[in-house]
Amino acid sequence: MIEAGLLIINLQSLIISLQSLIINGFIMTNVSIIGIGQTEVKEMWDTSIRHLAWYAIEAALDDAHTTDVDAIFVGNMLAESLSNQNHLGALVADFAGLRGIEAVTVEAANASGGAALRQAVLAVKSGLVETALAVGVEKMTDETGPKVTAAAATSLDADYEAMHGLTLAGAGALLMRRYMHEYGRQVADFAGFSVNAHSNGADNPQAMFRNRLKAERFTAAPLVADPVTLFDAAPLGDGAAAVIVTSHDRALDMVPQPVRIAGSAMATDTLALHDRKEALWLAAAEKSAQRALAQAGVTPDEVDLFELHDSFTIIAALSLEAAGFAERGQGWRLAQNGGIGRNGRIPISTFGGLKARGNPLGATGVYQIVEVVRQLRGEAGPCQVEGAKIGMAQNLGGMGGTAVTHILKASK
Amino acid sequence: MIEAGLLIINLQSLIISLQSLIINGFIMTNVSIIGIGQTEVKEMWDTSIRHLAWYAIEAALDDAHTTDVDAIFVGNMLAESLSNQNHLGALVADFAGLRGIEAVTVEAANASGGAALRQAVLAVKSGLVETALAVGVEKMTDETGPKVTAAAATSLDADYEAMHGLTLAGAGALLMRRYMHEYGRQVADFAGFSVNAHSNGADNPQAMFRNRLKAERFTAAPLVADPVTLFDAAPLGDGAAAVIVTSHDRALDMVPQPVRIAGSAMATDTLALHDRKEALWLAAAEKSAQRALAQAGVTPDEVDLFELHDSFTIIAALSLEAAGFAERGQGWRLAQNGGIGRNGRIPISTFGGLKARGNPLGATGVYQIVEVVRQLRGEAGPCQVEGAKIGMAQNLGGMGGTAVTHILKASK
Repeated sequence: MIEAGLLIINLQSLIISLQSLIINGFIMTNVSIIGIGQTEVKEMWDTSIRHLAWYAIEAALDDAHTTDVDAIFVGNMLAESLSNQNHLGALVADFAGLRGIEAVTVEAANASGGAALRQAVLAVKSGLVETALAVGVEKMTDETGPKVTAAAATSLDADYEAMHGLTLAGAGALLMRRYMHEYGRQVADFAGFSVNAHSNGADNPQAMFRNRLKAERFTAAPLVADPVTLFDAAPLGDGAAAVIVTSHDRALDMVPQPVRIAGSAMATDTLALHDRKEALWLAAAEKSAQRALAQAGVTPDEVDLFELHDSFTIIAALSLEAAGFAERGQGWRLAQNGGIGRNGRIPISTFGGLKARGNPLGATGVYQIVEVVRQLRGEAGPCQVEGAKIGMAQNLGGMGGTAVTHILKASK
Repeated sequence: MIEAGLLIINLQSLIISLQSLIINGFIMTNVSIIGIGQTEVKEMWDTSIRHLAWYAIEAALDDAHTTDVDAIFVGNMLAESLSNQNHLGALVADFAGLRGIEAVTVEAANASGGAALRQAVLAVKSGLVETALAVGVEKMTDETGPKVTAAAATSLDADYEAMHGLTLAGAGALLMRRYMHEYGRQVADFAGFSVNAHSNGADNPQAMFRNRLKAERFTAAPLVADPVTLFDAAPLGDGAAAVIVTSHDRALDMVPQPVRIAGSAMATDTLALHDRKEALWLAAAEKSAQRALAQAGVTPDEVDLFELHDSFTIIAALSLEAAGFAERGQGWRLAQNGGIGRNGRIPISTFGGLKARGNPLGATGVYQIVEVVRQLRGEAGPCQVEGAKIGMAQNLGGMGGTAVTHILKASK
């Protein structure tokens, strides 16, 4: 009977540990990526927004060898004003041949794509959705430049910034000017970001700009908003990218190389730059990066590549600092000596980044994920970062008012 | 030793059942509502969209006696075109004193509010978010009527419906005319829906219209889009409503009467009416209702009240049919003899519904939830449905292109 008593105690303690595991959420669903798809980024005058989304979804379904999707999360920012179309969730589900399934639009300005993936991750982890698809889509070229610029400025504070004429490029210029003043930098110090992006984009057939860029041309570029030039600012384009996620256990049965989402986090900050305690610190980028890294159990040193939100060269520098890859005021240094190149300390914009691949605002965050997955599968072709096992993607909304960070891990 | 052996077998079978419970997802986090808040629905010319959202959030935080919220899901449809403001997630979080937390906008046309709650539920169930707040907010009166009408029509198919001049009221008219033809009905057969809504709205201090309506006035109302009259169509207004959710276990420690979300489901259909196999059947409404009812283990007969999406009287009739409260073609009958009244077979629009409480598009779905919670807590005052224990809310986008259904259960 003593033996029996011990057994009972052992088994009871087993049950208690099991319960505590459940309560503490350790027996949660791990989520993995089983399919990716993307369109070229460019001006597509003859392609509607529903077609764009469909092309990316179709490619992702083909890649995952499935049509069995339970929910679609559409990342989009500007269809309401540029395509007179809200309600993209239902529309895209129907047009992609998935009529009737759960579908919704997720918007966090330029971070809409990353936010859509974040919702897909939450949905699969919840246990209520088995397979979810995040598609980022933006159709920008049906309207004139001034209307697109005004629409993009809806990511800023409408009442206190945009209303007074501030645009995204204007906000970028304020930050860049301040950074140059604060840290004694010159415009030329930012050249490396664009040179690297264009160098990588030249090898990416889906990139909007595939021309290499010489550092000496950088400083001679025409001004967009002083000191931001044409070569500091990422180009807006049409595009769509899609990612399919499911539980890791299921993923292992479905595809040879599922890529695990080891960290997923989202944080916010004020929209208006003047409301921030420190204009030159992307607090949301820092917070979401730290949380995602902690979830993944990874330090910045262990990250093999970082798809950051290089909407402007200054944002690339600030992102490197906020995410823990450089000290405050030192982000620009990584762009000097190949630190951000394919063989550098932390490769960024490996397919061209926003600068050369192009920036279809609400789709950009999903492009970043597609690109990290291609790297971790070893399918990045000439853009490959050798031996990449851990990749990080960070998508920003507005001037960092929203930040979504994901850490992905290769399965092999 | 025989006894010990039996114990081992018993305990092992216990562990196996526990494991199968985990695998089957039955030991998932149950989600409950711990706080609600709302503003009046009306034309608020001196209130910005951020203020509207804040008022509702503040009320919900007060109601839940907490300021500890981890994520905000903003249901909104039209801020981009009517307030020149995207990126509401971060903006609203900051303005409500919750700077930095996870926040995002969720859009599914007029179903944005219900969709925002759905995301909050998924977030809490995922285990990654402990407490989530869903706030629906819409600011409609800063722009002129024609611009608002055009903006609202972005919930229809832009390329195949709205482009040709179809509006929401026009689409409602097509459905109502077809229903009258198909089932041999008259305009007067729909009067009961508006009479009931206005009768209930008269008792709700937050309602946009608090006047009672006589059935004989109904048929004399001016036409909006033949046969839809002023008294068939719900009025658009400004408003915000908020709901705070957390795990049921936590909720029990926090508030005296948590209301459990027993069912949560979302489904879609084509946006365009002409793409549907049956114009008079709301397939997404049926699908999401069936799923939510099944999750809750509840039949329509057991539902004590149903906050449905009475944007038009015809939609109220079709919703009753799709959700299983009436046979096909018979939904109008429930409005004849008090079947939808407070003491009827299935009380609807108990605080006035969209028709009398008002319809701030992207906020409406959260108002519905707030109202069901007030009923289940027994705090509905003169609007109270006696003994209400199980409530259902269904929020539609466009003309039923999206449907979100929630089943709520009283804790006592």
